Amino acid sequence: MPIITLTTDFGLEDEYVGVMKGIILGRAPAAEVIDLTHLIPPQDIKRAAILIQSAWKYFPARTIHIIVVDPGVGTRRQVILVKKQERLFLAPDNGILSLLGNDNSQAYAVTNKNLFLEKISNTFHGRDIFAPVAAALANGLSPAEVGPEIAFKHLIKLAWPEIVVNKREIRGEVVYVDHFGNLITNIHYKLLPPVFQQNLPEFNLRIKGHLIKKINICYKDGKEAKPMALFNSNNYLEISLKNGSAAQLLAGKCGDNVKICPTK
Amino acid sequence: MPIITLTTDFGLEDEYVGVMKGIILGRAPAAEVIDLTHLIPPQDIKRAAILIQSAWKYFPARTIHIIVVDPGVGTRRQVILVKKQERLFLAPDNGILSLLGNDNSQAYAVTNKNLFLEKISNTFHGRDIFAPVAAALANGLSPAEVGPEIAFKHLIKLAWPEIVVNKREIRGEVVYVDHFGNLITNIHYKLLPPVFQQNLPEFNLRIKGHLIKKINICYKDGKEAKPMALFNSNNYLEISLKNGSAAQLLAGKCGDNVKICPTK
Amino acid sequence: MPIITLTTDFGLEDEYVGVMKGIILGRAPAAEVIDLTHLIPPQDIKRAAILIQSAWKYFPARTIHIIVVDPGVGTRRQVILVKKQERLFLAPDNGILSLLGNDNSQAYAVTNKNLFLEKISNTFHGRDIFAPVAAALANGLSPAEVGPEIAFKHLIKLAWPEIVVNKREIRGEVVYVDHFGNLITNIHYKLLPPVFQQNLPEFNLRIKGHLIKKINICYKDGKEAKPMALFNSNNYLEISLKNGSAAQLLAGKCGDNVKICPTK
Repeated sequence: MPIITLTTDFGLEDEYVGVMKGIILGRAPAAEVIDLTHLIPPQDIKRAAILIQSAWKYFPARTIHIIVVDPGVGTRRQVILVKKQERLFLAPDNGILSLLGNDNSQAYAVTNKNLFLEKISNTFHGRDIFAPVAAALANGLSPAEVGPEIAFKHLIKLAWPEIVVNKREIRGEVVYVDHFGNLITNIHYKLLPPVFQQNLPEFNLRIKGHLIKKINICYKDGKEAKPMALFNSNNYLEISLKNGSAAQLLAGKCGDNVKICPTK
Repeated sequence: MPIITLTTDFGLEDEYVGVMKGIILGRAPAAEVIDLTHLIPPQDIKRAAILIQSAWKYFPARTIHIIVVDPGVGTRRQVILVKKQERLFLAPDNGILSLLGNDNSQAYAVTNKNLFLEKISNTFHGRDIFAPVAAALANGLSPAEVGPEIAFKHLIKLAWPEIVVNKREIRGEVVYVDHFGNLITNIHYKLLPPVFQQNLPEFNLRIKGHLIKKINICYKDGKEAKPMALFNSNNYLEISLKNGSAAQLLAGKCGDNVKICPTK
Repeated sequence: MPIITLTTDFGLEDEYVGVMKGIILGRAPAAEVIDLTHLIPPQDIKRAAILIQSAWKYFPARTIHIIVVDPGVGTRRQVILVKKQERLFLAPDNGILSLLGNDNSQAYAVTNKNLFLEKISNTFHGRDIFAPVAAALANGLSPAEVGPEIAFKHLIKLAWPEIVVNKREIRGEVVYVDHFGNLITNIHYKLLPPVFQQNLPEFNLRIKGHLIKKINICYKDGKEAKPMALFNSNNYLEISLKNGSAAQLLAGKCGDNVKICPTK
């Protein structure tokens, strides 16, 4: 039986998540339902896109990932199923899957109403569409049976914050703040030009008026009350604080600029 | 193996929920334990009553629902087991099940101490009574073995906020605020008198000084920064805000009045 | 298949916990993964130590407890496996297991890199080491195969707040605040000297300027807006408030002193 993961902005105080699980397990009793998170900030499609891209590859083949951050619920926006490297992704077509990459992915419009609950509300497709369709897929339904195949390239894509990389500077921004108050940027290790990669030459990293001159290896290397930079476990540059929250110290948030320049 | 759901006010930072699961799974290893929520506001029996009433019907027959919001723990309040439409509900007798309806329900006082942990504390019956009794039921114990049958009508009932419905007005109130800041009222679609149902005639809906003149179909139909009304996925009237929190905009909370009047 | 429990400070908004579950279930599909909590305050080793000590005994034999509160991740701190009464505990060697007691426990340094993910980050050993090692243990790996046995007594121990117990006074402190705002102290029932145990003679309990003269049996016995004392479900003295938060009323927090003196 495949794993079904859930990523939503539903929060944990209401019955919304539990109801989805009730429907899934009523129809696919042997499925294993795993919460990725239900604390995506309400309507924050970009945060959900980053999270699923960081998480999916750690789940085994045949996993079904449901992602429901869906401000357009009840409108004519499509529900889509994407198949990529033996995993399935079920989501509204609002850009939430736009970081998955398009290598050999197949996409389908989820239109087969026989799979849905009998009455479809205009506010809770997690319950009425996503849960029962995922259960059917867990039970062995072939992706093509959810509806017509569509071109992956026609799916809605998020505008993504630009990264400037040249010999004089790297410019990116904070794309999310994690639970620890780490400021995670969109600067991936691979983006560093050779001048930065060779033994990490001297540089000035500036964020919100703070100057950082070193990439640390681990959190404990930092100094108390001084922000540090390191590459996180997904190889993105993050600004952190030893035993504290960089977000709090710097009043840092999504969209803050980060700039790295070699010192000569 | 049946599903066991948990609804509590225990929060997520302590070991309380995990300990209940340890006891359940130690005794009924094949049970599937599903969290509905552990974020019922402390001691808020009314919120728990609404939540379980919204959720139970989406779980399959044989599900065992444990609901522990229990300010009377350690006193002589009863623990009860209710059987309704092939589902079981295990809860303190404090009104928490009073929205389930009483059609053909059977009720039992949970008194069979052989089912409990050996030592019963006065502060944590979730661990000492609810978890082991649910495990025994999951293992096939018949409801009658938990203790004597009692009359459903003698169970404690919550006082419920009054709804006024007549040709000139519908008056209800906000009964809870969800994670998105939606203000959920006790006005069910079915309560609308014919004058309101026929093609939704013109009306004035007033809440906290705001005037709303339309029922929207979905969230996206709203206008930014203007509260809207719609019927939610359980068919109750809610006041919402497109891409925001109506609770925040209106400083809305439980108990706020909502009044709908036809314009002529 | 054994149960695997997770106790971390990772929070619930990011993919960190889900990724650990993906790795565990990809390698040990029949394992049951149970969250104890992910809301240990960041880097709070002491809170995690108390929580796991309160929780582990309610889980069946063969359970594997993973505890990751790990400010030293990426340094040379050891990862350890402890076997105690047929349960396994997998944690960084930073004092987090120091309340388990050392009766007949065996300890191992987790050094067998064949069990880890191929690339080990310096910031997320929950994913790279703890999850795959736990999966291997769930699949039947013997503890001795994780690495060399080490002396339990050489593991790092937390300094623990002192308790003064004599005929004239008992002095302890608040060691954590739970979800309800209960102030849990390190004063165990067993520590009470005979003068206190015999029918609970008159005493003065003082905390933050408040005087309490009675041990209550259950929460409902309290008076509104007056702090009360009782022994909680783990037999530790706690300061509570009927239908409210003692922490809020008293501005109580970790480290606050509690003193009990007989009145004569």
